Amino acid sequence: MKVRCVSLVAAGLLTIAGSAIGQPAPAPMPAMAPAAKPAMNTPVDRAKILSAPGVFAAFSTYKIRPDYFKVALAERKGAADEVMAVLEKHKEKVIVDAYLTRGYEAKSDYFLRVHAYDAVAAQAFLVDFRATRFGMYSDVTESLVGITKALNYISKDKSPDLNKGLSGATYAGDAPRFAFMIPVKKNADWWNLTDEQRLKEMETHTLPTLAFLVNVKRKLYHSTGLDDTDFITYFETNDLGAFNNLMLSLAKVPENKYHVRWGNPTVLGTIQPIENLVKTLSMGN
Amino acid sequence: MKVRCVSLVAAGLLTIAGSAIGQPAPAPMPAMAPAAKPAMNTPVDRAKILSAPGVFAAFSTYKIRPDYFKVALAERKGAADEVMAVLEKHKEKVIVDAYLTRGYEAKSDYFLRVHAYDAVAAQAFLVDFRATRFGMYSDVTESLVGITKALNYISKDKSPDLNKGLSGATYAGDAPRFAFMIPVKKNADWWNLTDEQRLKEMETHTLPTLAFLVNVKRKLYHSTGLDDTDFITYFETNDLGAFNNLMLSLAKVPENKYHVRWGNPTVLGTIQPIENLVKTLSMGN
Amino acid sequence: MKVRCVSLVAAGLLTIAGSAIGQPAPAPMPAMAPAAKPAMNTPVDRAKILSAPGVFAAFSTYKIRPDYFKVALAERKGAADEVMAVLEKHKEKVIVDAYLTRGYEAKSDYFLRVHAYDAVAAQAFLVDFRATRFGMYSDVTESLVGITKALNYISKDKSPDLNKGLSGATYAGDAPRFAFMIPVKKNADWWNLTDEQRLKEMETHTLPTLAFLVNVKRKLYHSTGLDDTDFITYFETNDLGAFNNLMLSLAKVPENKYHVRWGNPTVLGTIQPIENLVKTLSMGN
Amino acid sequence: MKVRCVSLVAAGLLTIAGSAIGQPAPAPMPAMAPAAKPAMNTPVDRAKILSAPGVFAAFSTYKIRPDYFKVALAERKGAADEVMAVLEKHKEKVIVDAYLTRGYEAKSDYFLRVHAYDAVAAQAFLVDFRATRFGMYSDVTESLVGITKALNYISKDKSPDLNKGLSGATYAGDAPRFAFMIPVKKNADWWNLTDEQRLKEMETHTLPTLAFLVNVKRKLYHSTGLDDTDFITYFETNDLGAFNNLMLSLAKVPENKYHVRWGNPTVLGTIQPIENLVKTLSMGN
Amino acid sequence: MKVRCVSLVAAGLLTIAGSAIGQPAPAPMPAMAPAAKPAMNTPVDRAKILSAPGVFAAFSTYKIRPDYFKVALAERKGAADEVMAVLEKHKEKVIVDAYLTRGYEAKSDYFLRVHAYDAVAAQAFLVDFRATRFGMYSDVTESLVGITKALNYISKDKSPDLNKGLSGATYAGDAPRFAFMIPVKKNADWWNLTDEQRLKEMETHTLPTLAFLVNVKRKLYHSTGLDDTDFITYFETNDLGAFNNLMLSLAKVPENKYHVRWGNPTVLGTIQPIENLVKTLSMGN
Repeated sequence: MKVRCVSLVAAGLLTIAGSAIGQPAPAPMPAMAPAAKPAMNTPVDRAKILSAPGVFAAFSTYKIRPDYFKVALAERKGAADEVMAVLEKHKEKVIVDAYLTRGYEAKSDYFLRVHAYDAVAAQAFLVDFRATRFGMYSDVTESLVGITKALNYISKDKSPDLNKGLSGATYAGDAPRFAFMIPVKKNADWWNLTDEQRLKEMETHTLPTLAFLVNVKRKLYHSTGLDDTDFITYFETNDLGAFNNLMLSLAKVPENKYHVRWGNPTVLGTIQPIENLVKTLSMGN
Repeated sequence: MKVRCVSLVAAGLLTIAGSAIGQPAPAPMPAMAPAAKPAMNTPVDRAKILSAPGVFAAFSTYKIRPDYFKVALAERKGAADEVMAVLEKHKEKVIVDAYLTRGYEAKSDYFLRVHAYDAVAAQAFLVDFRATRFGMYSDVTESLVGITKALNYISKDKSPDLNKGLSGATYAGDAPRFAFMIPVKKNADWWNLTDEQRLKEMETHTLPTLAFLVNVKRKLYHSTGLDDTDFITYFETNDLGAFNNLMLSLAKVPENKYHVRWGNPTVLGTIQPIENLVKTLSMGN
Repeated sequence: MKVRCVSLVAAGLLTIAGSAIGQPAPAPMPAMAPAAKPAMNTPVDRAKILSAPGVFAAFSTYKIRPDYFKVALAERKGAADEVMAVLEKHKEKVIVDAYLTRGYEAKSDYFLRVHAYDAVAAQAFLVDFRATRFGMYSDVTESLVGITKALNYISKDKSPDLNKGLSGATYAGDAPRFAFMIPVKKNADWWNLTDEQRLKEMETHTLPTLAFLVNVKRKLYHSTGLDDTDFITYFETNDLGAFNNLMLSLAKVPENKYHVRWGNPTVLGTIQPIENLVKTLSMGN
Repeated sequence: MKVRCVSLVAAGLLTIAGSAIGQPAPAPMPAMAPAAKPAMNTPVDRAKILSAPGVFAAFSTYKIRPDYFKVALAERKGAADEVMAVLEKHKEKVIVDAYLTRGYEAKSDYFLRVHAYDAVAAQAFLVDFRATRFGMYSDVTESLVGITKALNYISKDKSPDLNKGLSGATYAGDAPRFAFMIPVKKNADWWNLTDEQRLKEMETHTLPTLAFLVNVKRKLYHSTGLDDTDFITYFETNDLGAFNNLMLSLAKVPENKYHVRWGNPTVLGTIQPIENLVKTLSMGN
Repeated sequence: MKVRCVSLVAAGLLTIAGSAIGQPAPAPMPAMAPAAKPAMNTPVDRAKILSAPGVFAAFSTYKIRPDYFKVALAERKGAADEVMAVLEKHKEKVIVDAYLTRGYEAKSDYFLRVHAYDAVAAQAFLVDFRATRFGMYSDVTESLVGITKALNYISKDKSPDLNKGLSGATYAGDAPRFAFMIPVKKNADWWNLTDEQRLKEMETHTLPTLAFLVNVKRKLYHSTGLDDTDFITYFETNDLGAFNNLMLSLAKVPENKYHVRWGNPTVLGTIQPIENLVKTLSMGN
């Protein structure tokens, strides 16, 4: 396998987003033997970025092009190392989660979730990722971006009891193997309700979901104006039956009448270390 | 034909789904001469998995890419054996049904229905299937997943007479040669009805269908939140006229007014041994 | 041109549909010199199958892939013979009509209409057709299936006067050069009308069309549940202006308010001997 | 450049449409030196066909495939001559207008408008056009057909004052450089209005447009049942601001509430001699 | 890298649009060493064209085709110079802004915004751009055109207070790194409101947006009839959270109920010097 010129690509982006990716790019690293990086490069704090408001997130689904399997197997075997090198390079700016969708989805083989405090850093990572051999043979089939915010309906002030219910429940199932990415868009009637009316609907929405917090983890991203959706809802679970029941309970509240998009796509994947995911999708003679 | 490295692909997945496909993968088997597998590997009980609740099912439609016919005929002749080897490998975890849609459908040449108690096992099979030559030259054009559940409207308790009608009738036609896969999605108004109202509509829905149980077999999968549909309805019949009349009777009940998706796609295929299907679609000079 | 292994493909299908295509397949025939077939193989009676109820029909539109023109002209010149051999092989089971759409349609270059008493025989023909070189370079872009039925609204019993009008009028124009394939789907409100209400609407629909029976031939196929349409309407005419006026008269009756699909696609083609059609689309250096 | 076998293609069509293109096809003409055609072959009278009712028109948009630029530049340089030879061959049956859309449209690089008294002649031309090298590397991305008719609302009888307004105004701007092709489809409520009601709406529609006749030329084609649109509206102008104002004035009348399609696509192109258009799109190393 | 024959392409266009691009085309310039252009060629005044009414604008999004990366890296390295030469050639007629969308969008890698006083000049530039190697390997995935106009609701006369608010506020954030292109289309009910009613709605729309003028720059293009949208709204910001809040405030006013398109696509890109953008997207081995 030839080494990908990761640093060259980064150079192209420096002008755009100098402040964001201003750290010198690592020298190209030989495949199979990732260079040891000095310890002073601190990776993003995963727990912190996953709970902070104001964080940018990019969800993108990918489909491997069929001609990837015409690349020599030896080269494909190096694909994972190359991707890992790009992750290493950007680890101070972004965290990346990977999900295998092949077998569940027609329009994708995998999807990525990228978090960054700065949207430019997320782009810089994804541009470098696309310049790896694996990324080059991946077509982006869906892309959604959003930001995190503090709770704005079921807050301590506005809805104290439900807020307590939300914060009191904790996930108690097996380690989740499945994740869902589901966009939600509401119509103009919803947005033209008063704040009080929307709060009331969200309370009715929240109540039946409390029982599922032991089985399903949730995270919400806001996208109005940033993309063609109002929200990106993200879930992790190990119990697809419980998840189906949670979603049925949400279908049965009046808020559902205001949806113009709920799903479309509904993307289901298994949670994967990205290295394994790249290896799985790079096999085949 | 060269032997596909089926076991390599499985290795990639082991990390993901160790518990699901933990059995050692069979050694690659020479095409044309499938290796004899030891008898202790017990296949999934077909009758049981097809009647149990809580089973995961993946429906996926495929279209052969035109360049498949540029692969040497000798190689294409080995395609069926390679697929059979993957089936053999996964037979303790999944059952697979195959349907030829070429001639009936524009967006597919065939579709597969995969049942597994664990959704990860279904994915593991489908990933391995896509790594065969036949799978590699197949584009997935639609994918729908769902789970089975116990009857929730026309149950013994809620609707005893109709339940008796449903359980009393048995298919009496010739062996079905045709199968249909038809997704169904209902609007927010439907889900916001009370349970009693929905039960009433489902009774009105069920009554006219009893007469067709002698001609048409049915199976229902639940998908709310798992995919962009609420249900996947599956039918087998040998009488397309009877099936058309059944569907007309369902169009004529009020429940139909709540549909936002009924079909789209409606997929019709002939029921096929997968080995024959692969051979039929691998011919041509 | 090399001879296509038509019989091999048929062998692949024998297991599926043994009863349907159980006749031994003819030996592969040399291109340019179609083998004389013994007289005992009786072709389907065209007039009879076109007027019988319970007949299966498959409409499929095709687009030639651009790389067909990279096939040597000499090979393309043999394409028509190869297609004719497939027709000969299936002539006891199916009749096939062909239409050139290039110049009128963006999504197709031609379409086929296949009638068979058994849907499996129609599939067997279309699978063999796709295995010819011409079929291999044709992408299916739309496929609709349906069945014929006896008149169910404007029958002798229910609407004697209009029935007389329908059966009394005969086409009196020049031999039609144009054909239209137009799917029709109605909404749930339509199907939830009583039979009497729908009959009344169909009478209002039928009355203004009588005047056009001298200019336009019609045939109706029923598809509810068999495909994503309720009907496939098929027309032949030599007078596009009269056809436009007929369709305007149908737009102006209340039944039109129940349409959720009328066209989409509207497919216009010129009626062609299939041999000529294949030759026309196989030319070019 | 090699000479395209234009006459061979024509032969293929002769059987279909003998009466329409019965004139002997011209011998293939050497590229770069179009053969002088005998004077007795009279071209279609452009002014007459553009004002007559009952004329068939085909609008088709095309996108050049990227691999066209892998054809040797020398061959591409001959593309225009080849197209001109096809035009010459069909000049007694069709007139053809060409428009460059590259830079304005995503789904096309150019579009053609073909008029013929006989729809089969239009098809014959377009089939021959697609068999030229330029046509072969062009994908048809949209195709709409229609026929011309006498004015049926704002006629001398029904609406004399507005009719006078329409016929009295004449285009007074610079030679138009821009053309628009905009399909229009109306809903069932529109077609179920009485003739008087529709006339009233069309009068309200026509009044505010009179002021724009000095800046915008218009032509109307009727397509109900012939294609998935009711009308194809065609405009020429040199003043895009005036055209925008005209369209705004049409958006503001009640008739607009009956539109289910108005645009989709709206196709804007610059009016071009077809020879130049082919040359422009054939350049590049 | 071979020099692209930019001037040849221009020649093809001269006939079309002689008056618009009548300046003699510059001689082909060697890559890497752009020829010094005489000083008398005055570029378009950027500040002026960006504030003038009656200016034509073309927005187009592009996706790099995967096979671009099979072009030798040495050739790809010359891509930026070639694009810069085309910009230089057209600088008296157009201004061009470039935005990197890779990582944020699935359907594009970048988009261009072209302003010109004459729509033909914008086309001439874009045709030449597509004839560069970079342009040749770029598929246009969306294209929207519009024109600028003087304010027509919140003008000094009609709405003096809000007009003052609009003109008084100035952007005070960091240099914007992000741009959005968002089409807006309104339904027939909107356009059938009286001018006074629409003014009232636009005032209600404008009021909550004033607070965001310090964080978000805006520009409006009118497209009714010119394309399948009524408006193209364009924004620049450095604060995605503020932009999300601005868009939420616009979702909450009654005007939103008249939208039939708002986004679809919403295109987010980082603002880039075009040279850098081309370099970034041309990297990779």
